[in-house]
Amino acid sequence: MATAPSVSYSMTVRLEVPASGTAVSQLTTAVESSGGSVIGLDVTASGHEKLRIDVTIAATSTAHADEIVEKLRGIEGVSLGKVSDRTFLMHLGGKIEMSSKHPIRNRDDLSMVYTPGVARVCKAIADNPEDARRLTIKRNSIAVVTDGSAVLGLGNIGPKAALPVMEGKAALFKTFAGIDAWPLCLDTQDTDAIVEIVKAIAPGFAGINLEDISAPRCFEIEARLREALDIPVFHDDQHGTAIVVVAALTNALRVVGKSIGDVRVVMSGADIHGVVHAGRTDLVDADPDSALRWIADNTNPEGITGTLKQAVVGSDVFIGVSAPNVLDGDDVAAMADDAIVFALANPDPEVDPAVARRTAAVVATGRSDFPNQINNVLVFPGVFRGLLDAQSHTVNTEMMLAAAGALADVVGEQELNRNYIIPSVFNDRVAGDVAGAVRNAAKAAGVTVTGTTTA
Amino acid sequence: MATAPSVSYSMTVRLEVPASGTAVSQLTTAVESSGGSVIGLDVTASGHEKLRIDVTIAATSTAHADEIVEKLRGIEGVSLGKVSDRTFLMHLGGKIEMSSKHPIRNRDDLSMVYTPGVARVCKAIADNPEDARRLTIKRNSIAVVTDGSAVLGLGNIGPKAALPVMEGKAALFKTFAGIDAWPLCLDTQDTDAIVEIVKAIAPGFAGINLEDISAPRCFEIEARLREALDIPVFHDDQHGTAIVVVAALTNALRVVGKSIGDVRVVMSGADIHGVVHAGRTDLVDADPDSALRWIADNTNPEGITGTLKQAVVGSDVFIGVSAPNVLDGDDVAAMADDAIVFALANPDPEVDPAVARRTAAVVATGRSDFPNQINNVLVFPGVFRGLLDAQSHTVNTEMMLAAAGALADVVGEQELNRNYIIPSVFNDRVAGDVAGAVRNAAKAAGVTVTGTTTA
Repeated sequence: MATAPSVSYSMTVRLEVPASGTAVSQLTTAVESSGGSVIGLDVTASGHEKLRIDVTIAATSTAHADEIVEKLRGIEGVSLGKVSDRTFLMHLGGKIEMSSKHPIRNRDDLSMVYTPGVARVCKAIADNPEDARRLTIKRNSIAVVTDGSAVLGLGNIGPKAALPVMEGKAALFKTFAGIDAWPLCLDTQDTDAIVEIVKAIAPGFAGINLEDISAPRCFEIEARLREALDIPVFHDDQHGTAIVVVAALTNALRVVGKSIGDVRVVMSGADIHGVVHAGRTDLVDADPDSALRWIADNTNPEGITGTLKQAVVGSDVFIGVSAPNVLDGDDVAAMADDAIVFALANPDPEVDPAVARRTAAVVATGRSDFPNQINNVLVFPGVFRGLLDAQSHTVNTEMMLAAAGALADVVGEQELNRNYIIPSVFNDRVAGDVAGAVRNAAKAAGVTVTGTTTA
Repeated sequence: MATAPSVSYSMTVRLEVPASGTAVSQLTTAVESSGGSVIGLDVTASGHEKLRIDVTIAATSTAHADEIVEKLRGIEGVSLGKVSDRTFLMHLGGKIEMSSKHPIRNRDDLSMVYTPGVARVCKAIADNPEDARRLTIKRNSIAVVTDGSAVLGLGNIGPKAALPVMEGKAALFKTFAGIDAWPLCLDTQDTDAIVEIVKAIAPGFAGINLEDISAPRCFEIEARLREALDIPVFHDDQHGTAIVVVAALTNALRVVGKSIGDVRVVMSGADIHGVVHAGRTDLVDADPDSALRWIADNTNPEGITGTLKQAVVGSDVFIGVSAPNVLDGDDVAAMADDAIVFALANPDPEVDPAVARRTAAVVATGRSDFPNQINNVLVFPGVFRGLLDAQSHTVNTEMMLAAAGALADVVGEQELNRNYIIPSVFNDRVAGDVAGAVRNAAKAAGVTVTGTTTA
């Protein structure tokens, strides 16, 4: 499928070109004839003989960017200066920082923020530990925890290489929901160790966001932490994705006029060995608590067998969270009328969305260059905002369904159509509506801090 | 000893008083006759009959503050409104926050700060892990780690109650040295567990500041972490205190014209059972690696025995990091001529500094209301700034001695006298001078990251 130039592959190229002649127009032509886009062109110095120009260019990949630079180098009279990758420039020194809410200008400030004044605050919390939610950062802080074992589509790249993602996540938490998140990238992939570490660091946080931890370890880590901790534990790759998919599916079903109780849904991503059913030799004797056995028992009551391609025939909904190009246009055409296709593998979906749209009624992907982008950013800021506002001790299915419902309802009846089943991440109602629904669900569940004095 | 009113015990009292008459002047008189200070007096609403006045008052203790409030309540015609504790008000919601360095306003911003652009940055770090110091927050981030076992003078108050101190520390790191510090208050006091946790969280940080961990566990934790990690591990209660004491002692010796090699120093704080000597029944068979045995072997070559009071007779320097009022004026008078007394127990020193000054040449305390305040804030921001700037893998004795020397030298020859052996924490040369000395010492030691590409 064709890929559009993206700012995520953008660079600024410094050039010197002759002041007279056609060199400047040749620059633009060279970029565009190579399939790139000129985002900006700034003359940063000008003389009688030469101009110095900073051209900012979007490409489709790193190789494509290199190719464009070579084209520019080839233009008569042009000399090439520094090439700066804009994405890397944004990452220099990291993307987040810590700051003090109060200036510390003199001894009086110091004596209240730190010793001796702080001792009284410590003592108040020692006497009443719930006051930590009132008198410390705990109230608005979450830890973004990863072991770097399943980062984006990059796999097991380890804790240091995972850090830019976690910083980005923290920046999104603050931007969309005012939450103070700090990344913790762990230098262990041992399940027991991760559980012990997160339990130990919990006192200073009001929530834990697990991130990019590989399956099936992530399920066990999350379950054990939920059991152990008195703050909510959310694994965005599971729960965030599930919430946004449920929201999008809710609206897609509204578009086609089908009911969730009547449709057959095929999901791809649990297993590479075809349809998960209880009769499979590897599952007959499996631990009933194992993830695959649970899926077989709870999602395949009719005992359907076979391949993915066989399973999608006649189905109403396909949800892919797996790998590129596992389906083709014929597979989508073989689905039921008014089919819904969520092809969420990133960057390359399970089926080319342009092809799927030929026969499916609604198509969504994880990509920003097609309609209906299924993006967790729609979910995690609002969910945690609601959990923190409610001072919730946990996060449960009711709260997550409430989040999905609120997210779906951001799209008004008048706005809803096959190309708009889910709002933009920049829709300023999203985080607040999701937060409100989660907060109410948490309060209704009776799992929030009570009896806390307020100032 | 007399204690002056402090803003760390300050409150704002809202009052309604008759518009006519002497009530307003009676307010001030009532506060001052009770030993408090009026810091501010704001008329926040005025009418023909009544004034609403917010009076901000400094007291010497919580009980004293309560006493003053009662005095105000007793004034004819005055009705008392809300009493707000200023220190607690400053702590509401915590003292630090996280923020994004880049605005995320649109899809282009999002695609560089987060997916898909961030993937290229992750890949660059996966290919070259040292790039984490260039492309992530690691370069400027440290973890402030405690188990809450020895917090200020409050003792083992646990991780939640310790959080206000750690937040204050983080705020000071940023204010004085531009460092992004995040508190981690651990819900375990098990030495092995703390070591494993700090090892695991290290990838995202360029330094570890251990804080308020009780002895002797703190020694083992620090030693094992130094061995295991490739980033510096500093225990402020040990090393920070040691550095500021060495700096102050250097200048105190300059004042009295004695040399460090010639003086006899008595330190109080290692042990409550009197002088630590190798012949003591509890130390004869002690593990030679044990802290007390090391002290006996390395600091008491003459095998001095007896009590603290006996040891100080004829000594040149007393350094107390122990408990209130363990010495009196007679003990100080029994020291050598031109004695130096550092009575650092907080808030109540080992000897009343006003009494000590009668015979000692130089007296220093940990208190802000006497000259020569020995305060770790003079040290930890600059030390970590230097370590981070050098990208140091460790912190060693040479670096700490360099820090002490630089701190001592902030006090110029013309400025040095018995009441000014150490600069103020607000002296704007302190952090930079300490940082420069530590950075140079780290580079000289050859323990810094090399070969890192710079942008």
